[in-house]
Amino acid sequence: MWIGGALHPMRPDPARAGWWYASGLPKEHGTRYAVVLDGGAPVPDPRSRHQPEGPDGPSAIVDHSRFAWRTPWPGRPLPGAVVYELHIGTFTYEGTFDSAAERLEHVARLGVTHVELMPVCPFPGTHGWGYEGVSLWAVHEPYGGPDGLKRFVDAAHAHGLGVILDVVHNHLGPSGNHLPQFGPYFTDRHQTPWGAAVNLDAPGSDEVRAYLIGSALAWLRDYRLDGLRLDAVHALADTRALHFLEQLSTAVDALAADVGRPLFLVAESDLNDPRTTAPRDTGGLGLHAQWSDDFHHALHAALTGEAQGYYADFARAPLAALAKTLTGVWFHDGTFSSFRGRVHGRPLDRRTPGHRFLGYAQSHDQIGNRALGDRLTAAHLTLGAALVLTSPFTPMLFMGEEWGASTPWQFFTDHTDPALAEAVRTGRRREFAEHGWQASQIPDPQDPATRLRSCLDWSEPEREPHAALLRWYRALIALRAAEPELADPYLPSTEVRCDEEARWILVRRGGLHTAVNLAPEPRTLPLSGFKVLAASVELPEGDERLVLPPESAAVVRGGRGSRTR
Amino acid sequence: MWIGGALHPMRPDPARAGWWYASGLPKEHGTRYAVVLDGGAPVPDPRSRHQPEGPDGPSAIVDHSRFAWRTPWPGRPLPGAVVYELHIGTFTYEGTFDSAAERLEHVARLGVTHVELMPVCPFPGTHGWGYEGVSLWAVHEPYGGPDGLKRFVDAAHAHGLGVILDVVHNHLGPSGNHLPQFGPYFTDRHQTPWGAAVNLDAPGSDEVRAYLIGSALAWLRDYRLDGLRLDAVHALADTRALHFLEQLSTAVDALAADVGRPLFLVAESDLNDPRTTAPRDTGGLGLHAQWSDDFHHALHAALTGEAQGYYADFARAPLAALAKTLTGVWFHDGTFSSFRGRVHGRPLDRRTPGHRFLGYAQSHDQIGNRALGDRLTAAHLTLGAALVLTSPFTPMLFMGEEWGASTPWQFFTDHTDPALAEAVRTGRRREFAEHGWQASQIPDPQDPATRLRSCLDWSEPEREPHAALLRWYRALIALRAAEPELADPYLPSTEVRCDEEARWILVRRGGLHTAVNLAPEPRTLPLSGFKVLAASVELPEGDERLVLPPESAAVVRGGRGSRTR
Repeated sequence: MWIGGALHPMRPDPARAGWWYASGLPKEHGTRYAVVLDGGAPVPDPRSRHQPEGPDGPSAIVDHSRFAWRTPWPGRPLPGAVVYELHIGTFTYEGTFDSAAERLEHVARLGVTHVELMPVCPFPGTHGWGYEGVSLWAVHEPYGGPDGLKRFVDAAHAHGLGVILDVVHNHLGPSGNHLPQFGPYFTDRHQTPWGAAVNLDAPGSDEVRAYLIGSALAWLRDYRLDGLRLDAVHALADTRALHFLEQLSTAVDALAADVGRPLFLVAESDLNDPRTTAPRDTGGLGLHAQWSDDFHHALHAALTGEAQGYYADFARAPLAALAKTLTGVWFHDGTFSSFRGRVHGRPLDRRTPGHRFLGYAQSHDQIGNRALGDRLTAAHLTLGAALVLTSPFTPMLFMGEEWGASTPWQFFTDHTDPALAEAVRTGRRREFAEHGWQASQIPDPQDPATRLRSCLDWSEPEREPHAALLRWYRALIALRAAEPELADPYLPSTEVRCDEEARWILVRRGGLHTAVNLAPEPRTLPLSGFKVLAASVELPEGDERLVLPPESAAVVRGGRGSRTR
Repeated sequence: MWIGGALHPMRPDPARAGWWYASGLPKEHGTRYAVVLDGGAPVPDPRSRHQPEGPDGPSAIVDHSRFAWRTPWPGRPLPGAVVYELHIGTFTYEGTFDSAAERLEHVARLGVTHVELMPVCPFPGTHGWGYEGVSLWAVHEPYGGPDGLKRFVDAAHAHGLGVILDVVHNHLGPSGNHLPQFGPYFTDRHQTPWGAAVNLDAPGSDEVRAYLIGSALAWLRDYRLDGLRLDAVHALADTRALHFLEQLSTAVDALAADVGRPLFLVAESDLNDPRTTAPRDTGGLGLHAQWSDDFHHALHAALTGEAQGYYADFARAPLAALAKTLTGVWFHDGTFSSFRGRVHGRPLDRRTPGHRFLGYAQSHDQIGNRALGDRLTAAHLTLGAALVLTSPFTPMLFMGEEWGASTPWQFFTDHTDPALAEAVRTGRRREFAEHGWQASQIPDPQDPATRLRSCLDWSEPEREPHAALLRWYRALIALRAAEPELADPYLPSTEVRCDEEARWILVRRGGLHTAVNLAPEPRTLPLSGFKVLAASVELPEGDERLVLPPESAAVVRGGRGSRTR
């Protein structure tokens, strides 16, 4: 053990194979230390809470009890939530927790209940999406380090907002990962898109699982978070009888009981497998929710008409696809996926509460993985928001969506390893060359301008036409909070009628209807005798049939319709 | 399509992507044909039922309706079964279905209910264990081809025996596999001990699954089998929401309903995962049974004292391990496995019927994967048989075990590819060199003498001391058939007492007890007031305590004992 230039011998722990300890060491907050393995160069502690000089520098001791929380930890459950996904490095130009916290008033006024932070673990360089973190218990120093995160969470709590953190268990970044020196954290028993898999079932995997689960519990407890978003759980390769995710959900439920707050786990999963969110006592993994890409794809295809890649199957009859996902969550529930070249998914038990599925018109992935990182237009967002924010799902927005931000959200990196930087640059170009893009059209991920271009412009929400869209989002979120039927998670209570040709869709949510006209002409919907609760345009009320102007949406109470679809 | 020297054009089937057909072709039984892909050399049909010239030769049309079955298909269920594992190539020197059928009278007289054939799919060369088959719908010609298998099954039925077949879905043999020319049958998305995995979840996997499931249904239906043993299901890499094994068990259950016979699937699995045999409507895979290696390992360690490799954890307290498996199936039910370097398994619901687990003192693997292929001694088999044949499991024997065959069962191959032959030879030596064996001690798998040495000597069962052991096996099997308590699959009805030091074990099965003394001295067991139903030695009856001579076993009715363990 290296501490302040002096070396202290470590001894193997006889009670715990693979663990080494040193005694009589300084434990003061801020003390720098590192680990020297077999006489090599000092490397950071795998469980380091603080990397003040970056992921390759020494670790620093963190005394969590030193932080003076100003607000009590509220504990906000997922059922009833509206989530706001946020990337610290581009939410503001400054790209810090503190500057982000200054914008939380806007977020709170929007009416959402939780912010979901994209990953904050340290990675080499200053800027990046964060999915290449290498120190899974620590906080990226350029964002503000551990204390910065706590100040942000404290500020969120002061605004009545909960906080969810995106954590990555399925791989570590390609640069700055010192874990392999410490033990069998990776295994070539399984392959992932990022190379050798994190070792969840090979020899030594008990400690790897403990490392990951320990980090998850530490995030929730030490930073007073409400939940974690688990990146790409389908890439967690685990053949053990007790799956890592079931072990994790058990541990998080136990912590929730311990701290008396409703902690939750939200998976990103492309498996369309009911087991993911099924309770453990029914054979499920016990995760509390998962992102619902099928709903996104149906909505995106319906709004934009795009039909490339994974949109192909959805684009064939996008309103029917949207209806299927609104009532049964998955479009691919045992149907053929042309994108995957095989049948995909299986039907969900429709008694599963809809709040276990996050519904969104956009996410960081669905914007940032486009060649130019372009967002939906304001016209599309107007319609999309009506469907997302009155859905049986847990709605989620991506930062800036609420005012139709004109800023893109592009793929940017700041790799300090020149070879890796070049590989990422050319890899990105090659990926999109396959879809007909010229290399010069693709933003250079390593160019600082790419990150800057992706930062939100905070003058926009004040200005028209952005302000109008923001009012629409606020109105819809407020309506969802005021009308329990809109947030009703019982899937069979949703009924959908639509006309693929005429391009309208009518979603019944209890006694309310969400009516959307996607066509460039006015449409008469099969509904009369209603009261308008919110509309993207001026609408007459009354006993007449609902006539929606081109590309408009409304939420109405009551209404006599023709038979349901 | 190549037929009798003439080429017939094939056309893609517009209704079924990837399928090609030719019309107006001869369909007579025995017609030779092959497939010419893109002008290459003719290759056999992947769904060939007959490879009269071996796996590289032309296919031959099989008209299943031509075979004249003499006996009706009885349909024998797994609950209540006693299984006899049998390898056609070494059951007799001749190594054919017909010569094996001549020995079925011995098998029937033994009292078992089913024979389980090791794999019979074609592979290059004449002899081998059969796990390197390459034509998954056909029957190895040196064994007797499709008609030979039917004659064998028919003879088994005539003897009142059911037939189970071992099928390999997790890999194909390294030589003679033409499947990759036809489509994406393999994927590098997953790795297995045999290289690229069979494609169960990558693009094109729907047809690969249909190919495997179709073969399983064809075996059961066309050859009138009762069940299939699925080799190493833990090596079936499948991330789809509907697991291949659940799809397979659904299809087999549907076929069972269709043919009106209780068809079943028995997995080899090293996962210790309750899902494997749990019913589908409880989130399980719906397989009907699985092999139970933990019971084997506990029994083997208890009998032999061996503690190498995976026996280490069992050998620490082997009788306690045996007790744990007899009452809860798995020794590793969430405990640390030193062999795997991690926690293994999870507890089974003890309401699971014990007949879902095959219990055995030996299997082809547990003998053949030893350096010399040596079997348990007659003394050990005497004790092992008492425990296996009165267990709540489905008992299984390995051919020749019942008379304590003096012939080993070694690892033998007959690879026609010289490079592969040499690789297997040196690989086998290298494997055992790690455990201190000299190369010269390891039988050469390619030497025909190794196969010959492994053939049963049918003069043995007639001779003492073999005949005595055979009488013991017959008596125990007859007792199991006569006393329903011995075959009671309800796990909580089994209670075990044992003394690790004194080396005795007493297993209560309802009103009966199985008493085994493993020590080299007499032992007094805590049981009195019993009636001896079967014993490996002469035993007095009466009100006295049960005294067992060295290395002896008895099954008794009644008995007052001290408190149960």
